[in-house]
Amino acid sequence: MMASRGCSRDELLQSMVMPSSALARPPISNFNVGAVGMTPNGDVYVGVNLEFLGMPLNNSVHAEQFLVANLRLHKETELELMAVNAAPCGHCRQFLSELACASTLQILLPGPKASRRSSRTGDAPSQYSLADLLPMRFCPQDLLGDCPPPLLLQEQKLHLQFTADFCANPRYAPWVDGHGSAQSTALYKALEQARESFAPYSNCPAGVAIVTRSEQVYAGAYLESCAFNPGMQALQVALVDAAIHGLPRYTDIALVLVAEVPGSQVQHAPMIRLLLQSIAPVAEVIDVHLTRG
Amino acid sequence: MMASRGCSRDELLQSMVMPSSALARPPISNFNVGAVGMTPNGDVYVGVNLEFLGMPLNNSVHAEQFLVANLRLHKETELELMAVNAAPCGHCRQFLSELACASTLQILLPGPKASRRSSRTGDAPSQYSLADLLPMRFCPQDLLGDCPPPLLLQEQKLHLQFTADFCANPRYAPWVDGHGSAQSTALYKALEQARESFAPYSNCPAGVAIVTRSEQVYAGAYLESCAFNPGMQALQVALVDAAIHGLPRYTDIALVLVAEVPGSQVQHAPMIRLLLQSIAPVAEVIDVHLTRG
Repeated sequence: MMASRGCSRDELLQSMVMPSSALARPPISNFNVGAVGMTPNGDVYVGVNLEFLGMPLNNSVHAEQFLVANLRLHKETELELMAVNAAPCGHCRQFLSELACASTLQILLPGPKASRRSSRTGDAPSQYSLADLLPMRFCPQDLLGDCPPPLLLQEQKLHLQFTADFCANPRYAPWVDGHGSAQSTALYKALEQARESFAPYSNCPAGVAIVTRSEQVYAGAYLESCAFNPGMQALQVALVDAAIHGLPRYTDIALVLVAEVPGSQVQHAPMIRLLLQSIAPVAEVIDVHLTRG
Repeated sequence: MMASRGCSRDELLQSMVMPSSALARPPISNFNVGAVGMTPNGDVYVGVNLEFLGMPLNNSVHAEQFLVANLRLHKETELELMAVNAAPCGHCRQFLSELACASTLQILLPGPKASRRSSRTGDAPSQYSLADLLPMRFCPQDLLGDCPPPLLLQEQKLHLQFTADFCANPRYAPWVDGHGSAQSTALYKALEQARESFAPYSNCPAGVAIVTRSEQVYAGAYLESCAFNPGMQALQVALVDAAIHGLPRYTDIALVLVAEVPGSQVQHAPMIRLLLQSIAPVAEVIDVHLTRG
């Protein structure tokens, strides 16, 4: 594409931001944001912002978060360069600090507009590092020490399995045994996502799988932030998976499986039920109980 | 105090950070944070972090947010200087950008430790502006234009009143008429807080009042952020009011009044009920219906 359009890598990425932002779903702010990211081997992924009518604004998904979830869902481990149509907010700069590649990530901003409020107007370059945008940032090492466990986008497999009680439940046993049904596929996707959660701060992993009326299955894992608030709920990541694959309406969601360890100090299912009551009120929500080990 | 201790204003404020942080309630991270702020006329306020067992981490209150809520509850309109024991996270830097005084606020950081991860180690000064800590920040003017309505900590009075249906309800009518009962006091505090909400982005104000078993009344207003996620729920601000006044246990909360406009695109009560189910499960929650005008 760079050759055929006669443009640089940076120009190509920036040219994709506005078309991508048209895919955003911000019914409250009507402020479309697009983020376009490139991996070291040149693959390109997009992110857009999602807002949920009826819910407090704290539940919004930012384009930069969507992009990271998109990368993760495609097993990408590194984000080299990202272009956005507005300077990332502090919440996003903090979330991006969670990436294993945080120190090498470069961020392209549209020059004049992005620096409109800046103290550096005039000579502002269009490419920034996180050290530029969030100096002296609070980072995973501040809580996890200098030899942290796998960071965001790095592979991890937590030791989790279904509880014996869950497997013995007559309704769920056929799903556990597996017969290729959408429910069975969703059940194992929820388990897989829980195992791949990024939850080093609370140690309370969670995975969510969505089954639509047409039996499509989407899934996502809980992603934490060392600053706590900027993390992503597992349902939000599953909604990113659904958005990527074109789910037209949240009301097409028929079933949601929430896999987590009962009795943990963070419980995910109640919050997920609340969000679904706003966006997919007829969806059935099932708790999938996990045990460690 | 500066004279009696023979120390500067900055040293005094920094010396108060660690003692203040002992008041934090972070049962998940066990990471105590303290923020000590000074107004232009030399009054000093503190903030600490609050985490809520059982709830997703996104519901945490940071020390810097607590400090702003504390200032607001005391009708302060400006924060001149703030000292903290760790560099504010991106979420807090974004929330602080909402202040009318954002461009003049100075932030004191403990030098060597705060700059441990910084690219500016060595020559880092200990006093920073928000322009230093969050360059090219996304700010209220980006959504509200160059002549924004009153910003955070500036006085505002929205036109809101109880609905006729609420006033006619036989249970609530005596509270509306007012007889000095804790319920009546709480009802009018919830209304007052809703009127003083900072909700320029959603235009969905909310006020919360808490009544304890011993009939103490605390209250708080909803405070938004232009970046959406870093805002504070009205219950969080009311819990700051309770913490300031020494509420020993959340389970001492008997009654919570949530004043908001029914049918708005952001509904506050369901989220507030969810948080209370975790921290004060026997508290009764009553919806106070407001109308604009």
